[in-house]
Amino acid sequence: METKDKLAKLQKQFNRQLEKYLEGKVREFKSLPLMERMMREIESFVMGDGKRVRPIFVLYGYLAAGGKEKAKIMEAAIFAELIHDYFLVHDDLIDQDDRRHNLPSFHRRYEIFYSRSHNARHLGATAAILAGDMLSVLGYDALVKSKFAPGLKNKAAEELNQMIFDVISGQTFDVFLGLDHYLTEDEISKIQRFKTSRYTVDGPMRIGAILAGADGKTLKRISEYAIPLGIAFQIQDDILGMFGNTKKTGKPSGADLREGKQTLLILKARKLANRKQKQAIEKALGNPNLTQKQLGSVRKIIVETGSLDYSKKLAEKLVSQAKRTVERSNFPAEIKNFLIGMGDFIIKREK
Amino acid sequence: METKDKLAKLQKQFNRQLEKYLEGKVREFKSLPLMERMMREIESFVMGDGKRVRPIFVLYGYLAAGGKEKAKIMEAAIFAELIHDYFLVHDDLIDQDDRRHNLPSFHRRYEIFYSRSHNARHLGATAAILAGDMLSVLGYDALVKSKFAPGLKNKAAEELNQMIFDVISGQTFDVFLGLDHYLTEDEISKIQRFKTSRYTVDGPMRIGAILAGADGKTLKRISEYAIPLGIAFQIQDDILGMFGNTKKTGKPSGADLREGKQTLLILKARKLANRKQKQAIEKALGNPNLTQKQLGSVRKIIVETGSLDYSKKLAEKLVSQAKRTVERSNFPAEIKNFLIGMGDFIIKREK
Repeated sequence: METKDKLAKLQKQFNRQLEKYLEGKVREFKSLPLMERMMREIESFVMGDGKRVRPIFVLYGYLAAGGKEKAKIMEAAIFAELIHDYFLVHDDLIDQDDRRHNLPSFHRRYEIFYSRSHNARHLGATAAILAGDMLSVLGYDALVKSKFAPGLKNKAAEELNQMIFDVISGQTFDVFLGLDHYLTEDEISKIQRFKTSRYTVDGPMRIGAILAGADGKTLKRISEYAIPLGIAFQIQDDILGMFGNTKKTGKPSGADLREGKQTLLILKARKLANRKQKQAIEKALGNPNLTQKQLGSVRKIIVETGSLDYSKKLAEKLVSQAKRTVERSNFPAEIKNFLIGMGDFIIKREK
Repeated sequence: METKDKLAKLQKQFNRQLEKYLEGKVREFKSLPLMERMMREIESFVMGDGKRVRPIFVLYGYLAAGGKEKAKIMEAAIFAELIHDYFLVHDDLIDQDDRRHNLPSFHRRYEIFYSRSHNARHLGATAAILAGDMLSVLGYDALVKSKFAPGLKNKAAEELNQMIFDVISGQTFDVFLGLDHYLTEDEISKIQRFKTSRYTVDGPMRIGAILAGADGKTLKRISEYAIPLGIAFQIQDDILGMFGNTKKTGKPSGADLREGKQTLLILKARKLANRKQKQAIEKALGNPNLTQKQLGSVRKIIVETGSLDYSKKLAEKLVSQAKRTVERSNFPAEIKNFLIGMGDFIIKREK
């Protein structure tokens, strides 16, 4: 089966798993309308996106390490999606992002619901803090209650802790490091490595492999594939954030620029820009009132300076590196094919 | 040894454990000043309080269930303090509390640090969201990496998940339930049960007992002691919040009233009040500009209506109930004595 078809099939399966799990949680609160509503909002938020990249990588980490119990891992793997949504809910609040999956982001949903209160903004923020905290517990819960042996689950939980800690460190850098200076390419790469790469590909795959009882050598091989692929994923994310189709990405275009987020795309353009272009970038970066025209001209600068090309080439290079690792591995042929296909998917995706 | 002396000794021991654990985390980030600073702030926040009630209850849950490996449980039990601090950091942000342990609360620390930024408030909130998220991971980490058998740790993690979920549900109620009506005594008791009781006494003791391999009967007995005691703890907290010595409690007096938090103390007074007293309470509740004079008159109303007396008697009744459970139990004599002493400590404490 082609990667694309396989992906579509797995996405459907994980959607069913997630729905089953979350419906159970909604039912637990049937007698408490306030909590039932919170769980329904969480469910609707989680079900709003469909990529399911992270549980898919858990599954393939497991299979690559020789795991055979597909039903068990399919049930356990949703932890990675719940943890992903935990990060999204808190990050959208931190980044003041108002849209997600073509819908209001979590804090905005409650802010809108309480819009008649003088306190609507704070109530929205409060709901998002609490919902993120709940999603974090749900993620741990899905892993801890899965049907694997306690010794394996315990090792997996250690890895999950480390992964979450790395992501929060990455987010801390992302928010605070750029407050007083323009980031260097090295600093950006550190943020990418901690933040997205770890929890999009590497963490999920390693946890899957651990649940299959993988040894250190297998884990090392997996990370050699997963880390460059994760960074490529982030680069593509930045490109989609700047040039993508809003309908497909589900987020307003240019949000990173408006929020002052220093992506590789923007910083490389600034570095390669002439004086006038540089001024235009600096005026746009972090400008909450960014106009469509300004956005258009920064886009043009990113193209003209060669920054877009640089990012694309870097992503391609990272994906090739990841693919080579898999080719050299002793993973089963079917797993190899899928992992190689995922490399192409990641840089060709439009959402 | 008397409960008081025993408590003081245990507090010192847990302080050392916590310091050792957190110093290790600070060292991990030696090469990343931004994260090192975050970890130092977290360390200073955790070390700022000294009651250590929760790890002490983990220890005594373990001992009550027949656990013998004191060094192991002392090391593991700090998870409960880290999780407690996770809740405090997020709750202070949600409740907009500016002081904690006689120092600025976590979000205020960063807000002060970035006070020259136009964005200081949001940066403070961001730091508190991230620090709370980190403390949550640290809590899981301390439990998962402890030296108990994986099977026990796995069961303990299940209980921890349930406990955290209950606490967040309680906090969700606490914030949103009272937005459009005055709470009933039944609703308050539900919030107390979910929020404080579960994670101050019941959750910690049950997790300790689980790590000792406790059976269902022992866990039931423990909850029969822990739940009433936890509610009494919350009632005493509310009393200290209204009448306590700010220097001792570390928080400004009357904060609950100012924030509009509907405690039993306030609602019972409102119920028993005459029309004039009722108006005074309603004017004060949720008034951000509450004067010392208004606070004084609400205090007087709480005393005169008999509400203070009602809360005190209820707390005493709950503590007696808890003590009786312990007396009837087959816990070792030394454990019985300490748990009974903790009952008195909880309603006599001044901080």
